Amino acid sequence: MSSIVLAIGNGSALFGPSAPADDSELVRFIDPQSQVVNAFDLSVLRGDGIFEATTVWKGFPVSLENHLRRLADSARLVDMPAPNFDAFTRAVQLVIDEYDDPEPGPMLRIIVSRGLDPSTGVGKTKAGVPTVLIFLDALGTLHELDPITMASMTRGYPSDITARAPWLLNGAKTLSYAFNCAVHRECDRRGVGDAVLYTEDGYTLECPNSSIVARYGNRYVTPDPRIGILNGTSQREMFAWAQQEGARIEYRKLPIAELRDADSLYMTHGGWVIPVSELDGITKRVDMPQIVAINEAIHSGRTQTDALSIRPVGDYI
Amino acid sequence: MSSIVLAIGNGSALFGPSAPADDSELVRFIDPQSQVVNAFDLSVLRGDGIFEATTVWKGFPVSLENHLRRLADSARLVDMPAPNFDAFTRAVQLVIDEYDDPEPGPMLRIIVSRGLDPSTGVGKTKAGVPTVLIFLDALGTLHELDPITMASMTRGYPSDITARAPWLLNGAKTLSYAFNCAVHRECDRRGVGDAVLYTEDGYTLECPNSSIVARYGNRYVTPDPRIGILNGTSQREMFAWAQQEGARIEYRKLPIAELRDADSLYMTHGGWVIPVSELDGITKRVDMPQIVAINEAIHSGRTQTDALSIRPVGDYI
Repeated sequence: MSSIVLAIGNGSALFGPSAPADDSELVRFIDPQSQVVNAFDLSVLRGDGIFEATTVWKGFPVSLENHLRRLADSARLVDMPAPNFDAFTRAVQLVIDEYDDPEPGPMLRIIVSRGLDPSTGVGKTKAGVPTVLIFLDALGTLHELDPITMASMTRGYPSDITARAPWLLNGAKTLSYAFNCAVHRECDRRGVGDAVLYTEDGYTLECPNSSIVARYGNRYVTPDPRIGILNGTSQREMFAWAQQEGARIEYRKLPIAELRDADSLYMTHGGWVIPVSELDGITKRVDMPQIVAINEAIHSGRTQTDALSIRPVGDYI
Repeated sequence: MSSIVLAIGNGSALFGPSAPADDSELVRFIDPQSQVVNAFDLSVLRGDGIFEATTVWKGFPVSLENHLRRLADSARLVDMPAPNFDAFTRAVQLVIDEYDDPEPGPMLRIIVSRGLDPSTGVGKTKAGVPTVLIFLDALGTLHELDPITMASMTRGYPSDITARAPWLLNGAKTLSYAFNCAVHRECDRRGVGDAVLYTEDGYTLECPNSSIVARYGNRYVTPDPRIGILNGTSQREMFAWAQQEGARIEYRKLPIAELRDADSLYMTHGGWVIPVSELDGITKRVDMPQIVAINEAIHSGRTQTDALSIRPVGDYI
C-alpha cells in the first residue's frame, strides 16, 4: 500500500514551455526511504528553491491552481524559470493516482530547488535544471481542528521594506525556512501553539507557515499581501466562503493591536482553517460549527472557483 | 584521482559526547555524483541546518578550530546538539587524506542538517540525528585575489534587533541562504562583484557570504559581531596578521557612511582576504603585495594561533 508517494519530477518538462505528451516523461516514482538528492543540490547547500504545500482531500488537491500561481510568483521573485501549469497539474494527478491509504487528507508537497550548484565541481556542467520532488504523505503530522493559542513576535522589518529591498525575498515561498522553524521552537518555549509576526512599526504580517484572518462582527480582515507576505491560498478559500455567506472581506494594513482586538482569529494554511483560541493571552471566541463548515466548503471544492479571483483591490497604501 | 571527495558523516558520533576510537565509524566515502540525501531531510525541505566552509591549503584546513567553534555557536542558536570537536577534526582529516588533485587550495564544506523531518511519515521514527556531509572540491569555483567592486544594500533590520528577536537567527550560519543568493543576483543586475549589508539605522553588517574589514591608516576596523552577524573566521586571521604587523585592530558599530570613507576595504571569507576596489562607486586603494602577504600568512598557518583569541573586548554598546 502506498501511504507515502514520492515522485521525482522532470525539471526540464515541468519548467519548460510545453508539457510532454507522455505522462512517463513527467515524473518517476521512487522509494520514499531511499536517497534521492545529490549533495551538491542547491536545496541541500543553500535552501535555494521554492515550494508549495496543500491537502489532497479524498483525491481533490485543494487550491491547486492558486498554489501553482503562487509557485510562479515565487519563481519570478527568485529569478527561476516559470513553472508549466499543465505539466505540474498532470504530475500532481499522477502522484495522487499512486496513493491508496485510507487516510482521506494526506499532505501534498511540491519542492523545487534551483538544481545543482554551478559553483561546485559536480554542478558546474549540469546546473540550470530545477530539481523537483512531489510527495503525498499520509503518515506524517496531519492538520487538526483543535483551537490553538498564539503569541505575536516581531519579524524585524519595517512595513515599507518589501518595495525597497526585493532581495529580502519577502512574499516568496522559499526553501529557506530556518527562521520559520526557529519561530516554532520559540513558540514551544513559550508554551503557545503558533506565532503571528508583525513589523517593527506594528503591522500584522503572517504566521511562520500560515496566514492569519481576523473577524470583527460580520467582517473578515487579513493583511494585504503587498506588505511582503505570502498570498494565502487557504485564506482566499476562506474569503470565498465568507463572501458566499454574505460577510464582508477586507485586505489592508492591519495593526497588531487591532488584531488583538478581533472577535475571532483564524489561522489558514495547507487547505485548512484552524481556530485561534488566544492571542498574547487574550481569549478569542471559537465557533467550532463554523470552523467545520468552512473546512467542508474548502475541501468539497465549493470555494475553489471564487477563490481564484479574490485579491486586494486598489493601490497599496 | 579524487578531485572531489564526498563523505557522509556519522551524525551520532559527530554530535555525540565521545568520539569513536575507530575512524571507520566517523565517515564513509561516497561517489559525489550519486544521490545521498533523503527527500524528507530537513536540509531539503526547510534549509534547516548549519554549515561551515574554508580552504584546505596544501593539506592545511585554514582556521579549522575557529570554524568548529562557530559551528558550535550556530548549533546553539538553532537548538541543535553540540558538535564533537575531536570527532569533527578527525573526520575532516580523513576527507583531506582522500584528496589527491594537484590544485593546492580546494574548498572544504561541512554541511549539517537537523536530520529527517519528524513531521513526515519517513522521518517520524528516525528523526533527531543530524545529517552530516563533508566535502572537498577542487573542481568548483575557487577563490581569486582579483579586486572586486561592491554595492551596499539594506538588510532591513534595525541594529538592536538581534538581542530582541533571537528567533531571527542573526549570527547563526544556517543552510537557509536563499536571501544571500538573492543578494548575489542583485549584484549581477547592478554589475558589481559583491554587496555589503547595513541596518536600517545605517550600521555596517557583513557581506552575503563574507565579512568586511576597513582600513583607516594603520587601523583595521570590522563590525562587532554582536550586532547580529557571523563571527568572521578569515577576518580574525586577518586581524591576527595586522597585530603581528604592528597595526591596530578594532571591533565596533561601524556606520556605513564611515565604511565608504575607508582608505582600503577587504572582503574576508573561506580562508581568503580579497581586496575591494570600489564601494558604491567610490574607488578604494588596493595594495596587491599586501593582499598576497596577508593570504600567505593565513595559508601558512602563521596567524592561526593568534586568531583563536581575537574577539571584541568590553560590553556591546
